[in-house]
Amino acid sequence: MHQLKNDRFLRALRRQPVDRTPVWIMRQAGRYLPEYREVRKQAGSFMGLCTNPELACEVTLQPLRRFPLDAAILFSDILTIPDAMGLGLHFVEGEGPKFSRPVRSAAEIEALPRLDPNESLAYVMDAVALIRKNLEGAVPLIGFSGSPWTLATYMVEGGSSKSYGRVKGLLYDQPRAAHTLLGKLADAVTDYLNAQIAAGAQAVQVFDSWGGVLSPETFREFSLQYMQRIVDGLHAGPDGEEIPVVLFSKGCNGHLEALAATGCQALGVDWTISLTEARGRVGDRVALQGNLDPAVLLASPEVIREQAAATLASFGHGEGHVFNLGHGITPEVKPEHLGELVRAIQDLSPAYHES
Amino acid sequence: MHQLKNDRFLRALRRQPVDRTPVWIMRQAGRYLPEYREVRKQAGSFMGLCTNPELACEVTLQPLRRFPLDAAILFSDILTIPDAMGLGLHFVEGEGPKFSRPVRSAAEIEALPRLDPNESLAYVMDAVALIRKNLEGAVPLIGFSGSPWTLATYMVEGGSSKSYGRVKGLLYDQPRAAHTLLGKLADAVTDYLNAQIAAGAQAVQVFDSWGGVLSPETFREFSLQYMQRIVDGLHAGPDGEEIPVVLFSKGCNGHLEALAATGCQALGVDWTISLTEARGRVGDRVALQGNLDPAVLLASPEVIREQAAATLASFGHGEGHVFNLGHGITPEVKPEHLGELVRAIQDLSPAYHES
Repeated sequence: MHQLKNDRFLRALRRQPVDRTPVWIMRQAGRYLPEYREVRKQAGSFMGLCTNPELACEVTLQPLRRFPLDAAILFSDILTIPDAMGLGLHFVEGEGPKFSRPVRSAAEIEALPRLDPNESLAYVMDAVALIRKNLEGAVPLIGFSGSPWTLATYMVEGGSSKSYGRVKGLLYDQPRAAHTLLGKLADAVTDYLNAQIAAGAQAVQVFDSWGGVLSPETFREFSLQYMQRIVDGLHAGPDGEEIPVVLFSKGCNGHLEALAATGCQALGVDWTISLTEARGRVGDRVALQGNLDPAVLLASPEVIREQAAATLASFGHGEGHVFNLGHGITPEVKPEHLGELVRAIQDLSPAYHES
Repeated sequence: MHQLKNDRFLRALRRQPVDRTPVWIMRQAGRYLPEYREVRKQAGSFMGLCTNPELACEVTLQPLRRFPLDAAILFSDILTIPDAMGLGLHFVEGEGPKFSRPVRSAAEIEALPRLDPNESLAYVMDAVALIRKNLEGAVPLIGFSGSPWTLATYMVEGGSSKSYGRVKGLLYDQPRAAHTLLGKLADAVTDYLNAQIAAGAQAVQVFDSWGGVLSPETFREFSLQYMQRIVDGLHAGPDGEEIPVVLFSKGCNGHLEALAATGCQALGVDWTISLTEARGRVGDRVALQGNLDPAVLLASPEVIREQAAATLASFGHGEGHVFNLGHGITPEVKPEHLGELVRAIQDLSPAYHES
């Protein structure tokens, strides 16, 4: 393996000194890039792209050729796990992901298989290994998974949802069945992330995209508890190094302290809280990753620079900040606008790291 | 006018002693009721129902015939104001509200007319007066409006949105135009609610349904500020009585203190924060209205009762709680389930009001 040339991202996750704030962008490999849309077309379908290690590697590397980003993130989808469990993932134009065989009864939950990710998700590990090879140590590679709760919402609802009636009905009416499902998913996610680590992922992120639709009690019982199990079950890297884990529970600003107490290294933070407040609440227990409103990238370059400056100032001086958006970059963004943002972070952030 | 027979709701909003916790339900006149669906069919269209005072009155009263609720709420839609401004409101099956003439440029914003609600929204005032007459003082009538920011999202996006790119682009790139739009909307909402009060509304609620998509700074500048103007501009009732105003900024738990400081009488609270915490943060400055997860109504009657009990316990002893869901009741709910919820509040809440 190549020696890592840029370790800003890993150092920031560990709250160690850096020369400037590292930056990567959720969905940095995505539809806003014309070269991505080209490869996506070539792949025929979204899952065709995810399951082809060469193409997944290519789109992972695309944003790094354009912008001096400090990390790469595996190109994949959070729904690979339920797909491997046999639920029949497919995408309906304009409606998002769908499952042909959603999981709703206790019997269906019992019947879910235990995955061997190196077998049924081998294409992901192949992509991880290939990306690591092609990165040549330029920047670290982030692996990821959906959280058990977030995966469960899609598996029970059969796709995206507005009110989450079915999956919440399961929590409220059949809590034992819900716990069985979430326990199986926590095992699957842990095994999956450990396989990504073994294949070369140098940090991992858990996307709890729908944690924010739960009440405080149900969040703790049905989402947080299972992320805790994942944090506890993650292995060290091939050289025995600790692999940092980032938990990103969107819309869960009320739970930052509890998330920080899991022992994770960093929290993703959405844009609905200031980093000043978030940092004040978690202290120096974790690093923070975020949190510019993705809509700012639709504004003018001047406004982008101004808002980037405000986000850096909001975290303030000292270590433990990874700059990112508060959610994924949207397809309408002009690539030059992202360029302006990355440039602004490079220009303005060194002032926050002078000792 | 008839003497008000049940003033629990108004007393709770003023944090005065009550014998039990009052209860009403957002969207209590709605699609989960077969008798509503019948009248809706008769009306031909959703806006046909809103603009017909007799039918709007009928559906407003329907839930009160089934359940011993402590308040009625005007049946209408938050988009009546932009519709009256000439934006061409229509509903597309499965896609929600749409505007034929969205407002996007500074010139289009300048051209928006100042409304006389007693003229262009006379059908609303007629409905208010008719409902008051038919209620015969049984319970108070709540009037309502969307917040300026929430109305602006629909007017600029041309309908519902996922990422709010256009309207946020306006805030970030053309803040002066955005302030002009929001100022005009704040005037329109204030005039509209004052007309509802003059026509007979005994309390009013402002629905800031999309306040939660803003960053802390943009929320204060573009949503909160304009709700403050509305609170400041509301008139007393026909007998000189203060009309309580409830602000409901969904997804804005980080802003409860700031919302409470506007001088409103009560805050709507969604289900993602415990009432214990919310009450701790706002103290006795305001009453709280909420906050059961609407999905609980899809669970069994036993679970509904248990969760209703937990919500009452979460607010705890003392005055200033109006029981409600944390968001509107959904169409799939069985009416008997709402019956069970209302019964549970009636049975269990007196224990919290013994002196």
